[in-house]
Amino acid sequence: MQMRRAFYIGRFQPFHLGHYSVITSIARDVDELVIGIGSAQKSHEATNPFTAGERVMMIRHALRDTDITHYAIPIEDLQRNAVWVSHIVSMTPPFDMVYSNNPLVIRLFEEAGIEVHQPPMYHRDGYSGREIRRRIIAGEDWKHLVPPAVIDIIEDIDGVERLRQVSRTDID
Amino acid sequence: MQMRRAFYIGRFQPFHLGHYSVITSIARDVDELVIGIGSAQKSHEATNPFTAGERVMMIRHALRDTDITHYAIPIEDLQRNAVWVSHIVSMTPPFDMVYSNNPLVIRLFEEAGIEVHQPPMYHRDGYSGREIRRRIIAGEDWKHLVPPAVIDIIEDIDGVERLRQVSRTDID
Amino acid sequence: MQMRRAFYIGRFQPFHLGHYSVITSIARDVDELVIGIGSAQKSHEATNPFTAGERVMMIRHALRDTDITHYAIPIEDLQRNAVWVSHIVSMTPPFDMVYSNNPLVIRLFEEAGIEVHQPPMYHRDGYSGREIRRRIIAGEDWKHLVPPAVIDIIEDIDGVERLRQVSRTDID
Amino acid sequence: MQMRRAFYIGRFQPFHLGHYSVITSIARDVDELVIGIGSAQKSHEATNPFTAGERVMMIRHALRDTDITHYAIPIEDLQRNAVWVSHIVSMTPPFDMVYSNNPLVIRLFEEAGIEVHQPPMYHRDGYSGREIRRRIIAGEDWKHLVPPAVIDIIEDIDGVERLRQVSRTDID
Amino acid sequence: MQMRRAFYIGRFQPFHLGHYSVITSIARDVDELVIGIGSAQKSHEATNPFTAGERVMMIRHALRDTDITHYAIPIEDLQRNAVWVSHIVSMTPPFDMVYSNNPLVIRLFEEAGIEVHQPPMYHRDGYSGREIRRRIIAGEDWKHLVPPAVIDIIEDIDGVERLRQVSRTDID
Amino acid sequence: MQMRRAFYIGRFQPFHLGHYSVITSIARDVDELVIGIGSAQKSHEATNPFTAGERVMMIRHALRDTDITHYAIPIEDLQRNAVWVSHIVSMTPPFDMVYSNNPLVIRLFEEAGIEVHQPPMYHRDGYSGREIRRRIIAGEDWKHLVPPAVIDIIEDIDGVERLRQVSRTDID
Repeated sequence: MQMRRAFYIGRFQPFHLGHYSVITSIARDVDELVIGIGSAQKSHEATNPFTAGERVMMIRHALRDTDITHYAIPIEDLQRNAVWVSHIVSMTPPFDMVYSNNPLVIRLFEEAGIEVHQPPMYHRDGYSGREIRRRIIAGEDWKHLVPPAVIDIIEDIDGVERLRQVSRTDID
Repeated sequence: MQMRRAFYIGRFQPFHLGHYSVITSIARDVDELVIGIGSAQKSHEATNPFTAGERVMMIRHALRDTDITHYAIPIEDLQRNAVWVSHIVSMTPPFDMVYSNNPLVIRLFEEAGIEVHQPPMYHRDGYSGREIRRRIIAGEDWKHLVPPAVIDIIEDIDGVERLRQVSRTDID
Repeated sequence: MQMRRAFYIGRFQPFHLGHYSVITSIARDVDELVIGIGSAQKSHEATNPFTAGERVMMIRHALRDTDITHYAIPIEDLQRNAVWVSHIVSMTPPFDMVYSNNPLVIRLFEEAGIEVHQPPMYHRDGYSGREIRRRIIAGEDWKHLVPPAVIDIIEDIDGVERLRQVSRTDID
Repeated sequence: MQMRRAFYIGRFQPFHLGHYSVITSIARDVDELVIGIGSAQKSHEATNPFTAGERVMMIRHALRDTDITHYAIPIEDLQRNAVWVSHIVSMTPPFDMVYSNNPLVIRLFEEAGIEVHQPPMYHRDGYSGREIRRRIIAGEDWKHLVPPAVIDIIEDIDGVERLRQVSRTDID
Repeated sequence: MQMRRAFYIGRFQPFHLGHYSVITSIARDVDELVIGIGSAQKSHEATNPFTAGERVMMIRHALRDTDITHYAIPIEDLQRNAVWVSHIVSMTPPFDMVYSNNPLVIRLFEEAGIEVHQPPMYHRDGYSGREIRRRIIAGEDWKHLVPPAVIDIIEDIDGVERLRQVSRTDID
Repeated sequence: MQMRRAFYIGRFQPFHLGHYSVITSIARDVDELVIGIGSAQKSHEATNPFTAGERVMMIRHALRDTDITHYAIPIEDLQRNAVWVSHIVSMTPPFDMVYSNNPLVIRLFEEAGIEVHQPPMYHRDGYSGREIRRRIIAGEDWKHLVPPAVIDIIEDIDGVERLRQVSRTDID
């Protein structure tokens, strides 16, 4: 039987249990998974606190105890939706299908003639990067929303303080 | 008598009867018209759903039955207002004057010493790209606001569904 | 019968009789022709003396007396071959096939699954942008190699002197 | 004793008495001051009305009667926080420390291992670029908030009218 | 004992036995290896025939039977040497040292205060991307110079014909 | 009498006595001089070894003992000749005329309607950045070709070794 490889993209700011749940779900259907790390050039922003390299680490460590064969690939923004699929394709190992719930991602891959599946949505409250960042800034609980390995990485890089600090920046 | 060529720029998302009315009005004063298609690199966004090529088609087809000699030229953003006029000038046939009601466009061309005219504003309700996009997304009437050729193009490219889909995208 | 539209790209530095011959040949096979003006952002260089706007004019004037329905579209370089076809497609009206003798252009469109035809090569000596630029710089005959309309445009913009001057620039 | 050089960055839209006060305060601690002019590529926007060159003039003229040895250096945005410190360092004379109250600037320099000091904040109402631009647009008093040299420059370049005009632009 | 992670960068056009030999040699000294794929945005050029994604595949497959823990990360050019190290650092998991024989790479990391080691050079004739590309184009033997997995990938993507075709392109 | 300000641009890799001689000559005709530092984003290359900031230092220190009022402004390349003059103008204090012997610079400013003067050429052998870089790499005498302040700066930044090292880099 033919090897099947899927593509999944996110910004992973940070990588959380919702992502983890989607990835383990996709992994049941395919042999290998290419994980695109979107807006790779961004970091130290209130909505993009972590570098691409830090996000590579989060993904690798969070998936370390699974047997999911995956490739974590930073993808820089080109700010041109019309060439975005070609850009993805050029930066990644070849894939047979895409998994996404993002309407724009779905649209762009479908217009390019690539098969798109919608993974089951994760429903538990707080499984969202925005909510986790809000909680980190506000000093509320957030650690139950991410894999333990991600907690370690955020602590190693002083990520809580970084996020708080960059979120205080007001551009005049 | 000397040939007179004018420049007019818009994003044309989509090209509508307000644009059509301005262009036919300008065409009474000049011999040729250069139509700049702004933010040419953008597409598949809620505020910029159509590609530059699709917008070229809208303009050409909408003006097909007029005898207006025109050049439809995609203009990519440079994100630097101070060089924008030079950028326009380098991408277009030479022109003698600009028609615009946009204060920034007027300012930049006037600082560059280029003559700017303000075409009569079109007043009928809804003659605005924003309003037309809102109506398309909301499922309200919009076809009376654009030239018939533009309806055909939007249908050919599945533009209604594209706009609805990309407008649902929420960036986390 | 279905309308057929083809794509042809060149740098047109300047537009010459070789280009003219290819275009009239393609026009016998198709209904409309999209002419991409490559490296649109370049000008005032020894190998790219003319602006995109000047090249739009050359094409329009040279084809004025033909009945070839065409679109002359400036195409800026993205410096990424892997997304180049998508970039072209987004900037142009939709086309059914490409005409090119350039191996890279052929390869990129074929990898994208787009039909490519090779137009008959033009053989007469000197029908090359490089040779024409060399002759202009050297003060040799060149006017018989371009359409009369192109001579006029080059003279109007003081193009001979511009090319000579920029070709003397030595970067230290 | 060793010469000490500090770095201070702002957008200076426009340069105002708050900036002046901070700079004279820093100058008491160091021998030379490198003044980075941020978002140098921006101008003719409601929040960035003045060009980098105009801001160089504001700084030079405002500091002309002081004996502060300074370098005013335009710094273009790279839109990548992770490389911003290296970008600054490459564009400027070497400096020993940074003065800033901006949390992002502080964070980025501290992560790069560069010493950051926080200058005393200026408290007087209105010492903010945003407030001064608001007053200029609204026709309220603003001249007491900037050094006299800055008033002259803004008048020379018709800056009041420019700011009002670009702030009226509504992007459709 | 502390985990040690090293960084090694190349363009890998294609990945060959020289690279393989260096990597296995480095792997004896460290626990993990970050492999940067330089000029990631380039492909379909005579000197850069393969996409970043294809090069990711070459590396992964070539190292599949080793137990070298590695991260293969595409790195796009920024065309600014002064920020290149920061760019690398932001795109990759943190590393303790760099292995390189490239004088520029050595210089840039050393100026940034990062430890650089020079791996033993591979001496066998032909272990160079340039030589392998020359052989592929010329139809000479090349398969003994790359890992078997790389032969498979190049054949899967029709890489021999692609390289020959793009190398025939002459820019006029 | 009206204040007169001139513009002069170079790459200053490094700033040498030929530049110094031209600048002191221009300074006899004008009141102030804007010195553009071209290709500001480049450094650590065989033809562009020094950063913009290092070149700012060379200019400031070399002119310290003169009474020439000057502004040293880094100018990043835009790679678009057609907008280059606007880019310069936006980054610099306003100037009345340009001094240059570079044919492209002369052409671009003249096409923009700005007055260009040609300063007397410096004739002494070796007064060229290329020759000085060649001598530094070859270990030949070069110090008599630059102002003493430039020797100090190059030594402070280990510039001789940097230039030698980056010039050994061969891109495969």
